[in-house]
Amino acid sequence: MPISASKRDDLAAQLREIVPGERTVLTSAEDLVAYGYDATWFDSRALLVVRPQSTQQVSAIHRLAHRERVAITPRAMGSGLSGGAMPSLEAIVLSVSRMNSIVEIDAVNRCAVVQPGVITADLQHAVEARGLFYPPDPSSLRQCAVGGNIAENAGGARCLKYGVTADYVCALEVVLPDGTVIRTGGKTVKNVTGYDLRALFTGSEGTLGTVTEATLRLLPKPKYTRSALAAFASIESAAACVPSIMDSGIVPTAVELLDALTIGCVNDIAPGAFPSACDAVLLFAVDGNYEQAVDGDLDAIEAAARAHGAVRFERARSAQESDSLWQARRSVSPALARRRPNKLGEDVCVPVSAIPALVERVRDIARRHDLLIPVFGHAGDGNLHPNILCDRSDPNEIARVREAAREIFEAALALGGTLSGEHGIGVLKKQFMERDLGADALALMRRIKDAVDPHGIMNPGKVFPDPGGEDVFRLE
Amino acid sequence: MPISASKRDDLAAQLREIVPGERTVLTSAEDLVAYGYDATWFDSRALLVVRPQSTQQVSAIHRLAHRERVAITPRAMGSGLSGGAMPSLEAIVLSVSRMNSIVEIDAVNRCAVVQPGVITADLQHAVEARGLFYPPDPSSLRQCAVGGNIAENAGGARCLKYGVTADYVCALEVVLPDGTVIRTGGKTVKNVTGYDLRALFTGSEGTLGTVTEATLRLLPKPKYTRSALAAFASIESAAACVPSIMDSGIVPTAVELLDALTIGCVNDIAPGAFPSACDAVLLFAVDGNYEQAVDGDLDAIEAAARAHGAVRFERARSAQESDSLWQARRSVSPALARRRPNKLGEDVCVPVSAIPALVERVRDIARRHDLLIPVFGHAGDGNLHPNILCDRSDPNEIARVREAAREIFEAALALGGTLSGEHGIGVLKKQFMERDLGADALALMRRIKDAVDPHGIMNPGKVFPDPGGEDVFRLE
Repeated sequence: MPISASKRDDLAAQLREIVPGERTVLTSAEDLVAYGYDATWFDSRALLVVRPQSTQQVSAIHRLAHRERVAITPRAMGSGLSGGAMPSLEAIVLSVSRMNSIVEIDAVNRCAVVQPGVITADLQHAVEARGLFYPPDPSSLRQCAVGGNIAENAGGARCLKYGVTADYVCALEVVLPDGTVIRTGGKTVKNVTGYDLRALFTGSEGTLGTVTEATLRLLPKPKYTRSALAAFASIESAAACVPSIMDSGIVPTAVELLDALTIGCVNDIAPGAFPSACDAVLLFAVDGNYEQAVDGDLDAIEAAARAHGAVRFERARSAQESDSLWQARRSVSPALARRRPNKLGEDVCVPVSAIPALVERVRDIARRHDLLIPVFGHAGDGNLHPNILCDRSDPNEIARVREAAREIFEAALALGGTLSGEHGIGVLKKQFMERDLGADALALMRRIKDAVDPHGIMNPGKVFPDPGGEDVFRLE
Repeated sequence: MPISASKRDDLAAQLREIVPGERTVLTSAEDLVAYGYDATWFDSRALLVVRPQSTQQVSAIHRLAHRERVAITPRAMGSGLSGGAMPSLEAIVLSVSRMNSIVEIDAVNRCAVVQPGVITADLQHAVEARGLFYPPDPSSLRQCAVGGNIAENAGGARCLKYGVTADYVCALEVVLPDGTVIRTGGKTVKNVTGYDLRALFTGSEGTLGTVTEATLRLLPKPKYTRSALAAFASIESAAACVPSIMDSGIVPTAVELLDALTIGCVNDIAPGAFPSACDAVLLFAVDGNYEQAVDGDLDAIEAAARAHGAVRFERARSAQESDSLWQARRSVSPALARRRPNKLGEDVCVPVSAIPALVERVRDIARRHDLLIPVFGHAGDGNLHPNILCDRSDPNEIARVREAAREIFEAALALGGTLSGEHGIGVLKKQFMERDLGADALALMRRIKDAVDPHGIMNPGKVFPDPGGEDVFRLE
């Protein structure tokens, strides 16, 4: 139901009382544009934007929204890849970007207490300065914030060895839909007192409440890190190499796959970043506290790569070379965005044994639909990102994109996989939820949603399929 | 509401139709005694016991119970330490002990598909024969089963490095209260498609449904394991050593603390198992794929132990010596049980920096209440098991036990800890739930419970406090 201009003005006035100061409540057209995007191609407008600075303010905003039955879309840095933080004209965008303090780094208990607006890379640098380590490393780590990472249960390359964001959430402070503030968990890793609410809120994409503080587990920073690149004459060989490495008894930090099209796009913006005379590369990282151990792991990886026909295997000779390699890897998404006007980023995850089959099926889908679909991603844990490059303004092309996207998803499911490994569902993939989870598991999630948010004010239109919606990706 | 004998006979007849065969439905007094215990001192009787062999049968049992509004208490091997699987005269005990197949060990995708009745040690042996590794290792691993481990989110000594059972649950098949069968997760570690139902069911102590199959993540088996023992002249020195090791940048597999009373009890049944001329010992394990690395970690641990005044530091010289050490550690619980007629096992978990303070407070509580309270446990992750030894038949002693138990819990909370690190809440600790979680978080858990199990048929009387119950441990 559209909200009238006078109702909006009334809400804005009440929000300004809750959050005093300059630019705390935004209603101008240019501000609403600035908060109207994420890293998908969606583009929406919020009713208004409020920028609180404290848990008390977030709670008061929730109480107001709850009383008025107005929706809230929590938002951190808006770099998501599934539309989870996309606003709507019926929702208040609750931006946590001003709540960006690292409250505490506790070395003995190996944890950090942070507000949700802390940039992920800033947290990493801060803890590394203390000899500690926060492993989750989404490619957007210099733009994204911890609150968004928790909402989407973000991953990254190092998650192969270290697990995803959820594996690092020791405690959360959450404002429930009606404004009640709860804390769940503490500074202990082990905690079985009642249901695991930390895990329930992590990855719930803002549909159950707003996270206002997190206690994140840290590890000791490994003393040695090594990186290497293997180039292959065929992507089939590269793909086949991945399960054999995972079956070899070592646990690499990262095993990333980039196909020829991806390599070409990156080299367009950073010439020479990757070898161009090959069909695919694998990037590897290993880490640990003993030089012999990390070098030994890399020897085993090199042996596996060569056994699978790698035409080159190059070890980074310095921290700088290693950084360049991973910087190039992180530039894949922006590099692909330059090749065609638009891209639809997939995030399917399959058992690692199915990586060769998934790669083959995606290539076949691209061929049949005459589309450019570069494939890259976290091959070591089965999580690939086929990106469909296209021009949204071409209805004929979009029809093919729809069909290709559906087929990629069906291929992942047929191979024992899932719709999303680390990007979340948001609006992009919600119409596929029942197909992945089954009607009964989806209905159970719906019952949990209704129990936590009985008036449905938290981030409506996300995660759950629109009733009667088509069983396709939501592309507009 | 008590269930009449004729109603019970009618239910038994219907259950025999669902699960044909010999001894599938048990109603005799001796059978109900056999299913009336766990590893606490509680002792109850079930209405009857049913022993299905398939998910279909479990589903049919649920449908019957749902239709008749009769409660179900799922039960694996009944070795729990908080009463989570204790029966009641109003509940059908659904024993999963016959569902004990290892369905698949998938080496490439590093996972095992198992039924809930598989004994934890059997799973470990089976995967280790394939070069793989299932880390969770509750001390009861030779008696307990995977289904109970999942229900209670069991831990163990190796969880310091490797995490608890929940960290290994990739997928679950769950029969919901009304008999609906859902599957959640798959063979991928990464999966953010909707809410994390795997984490919700894991540790829910049978209050949300019955787990009928699990896909458990495996790791490559580390090539080298080393164990060592450090003996200290004072428990204060041993306790102070623990946070310093955790702050040193290494990640031991296990750091276990045993106080003098615990050592004495173990030595009573296994003379010489631990050095007797000391006030406390720490046991250490490290593992990895490189000999230099594991030896180096042990060197660092020895240096820390000696810096904290260890009077002895002994490395196990063989796999056999190492096994004996950990076998002795696992015998603590039965050894303590021989000292006095009864014991009340605690499971508090505090931030590791608070281990010295917790040890001191427990000793003070024991002194003031004139009780024997040996302290042992997983000191490296802050999870200690003070055990109050007593004689239940002495009302005066039980009054002191109650008070001591309450004070131990209050001490853990005051130190930033929680009620249970790995044993669960069950009936033992349910009256403390609100004090730990707060009324709002507990109310949220209650809403989730009601959403999943609207008729309250799953394992009633567990986890959630009895309304109006005293704020003490439930001891009868």
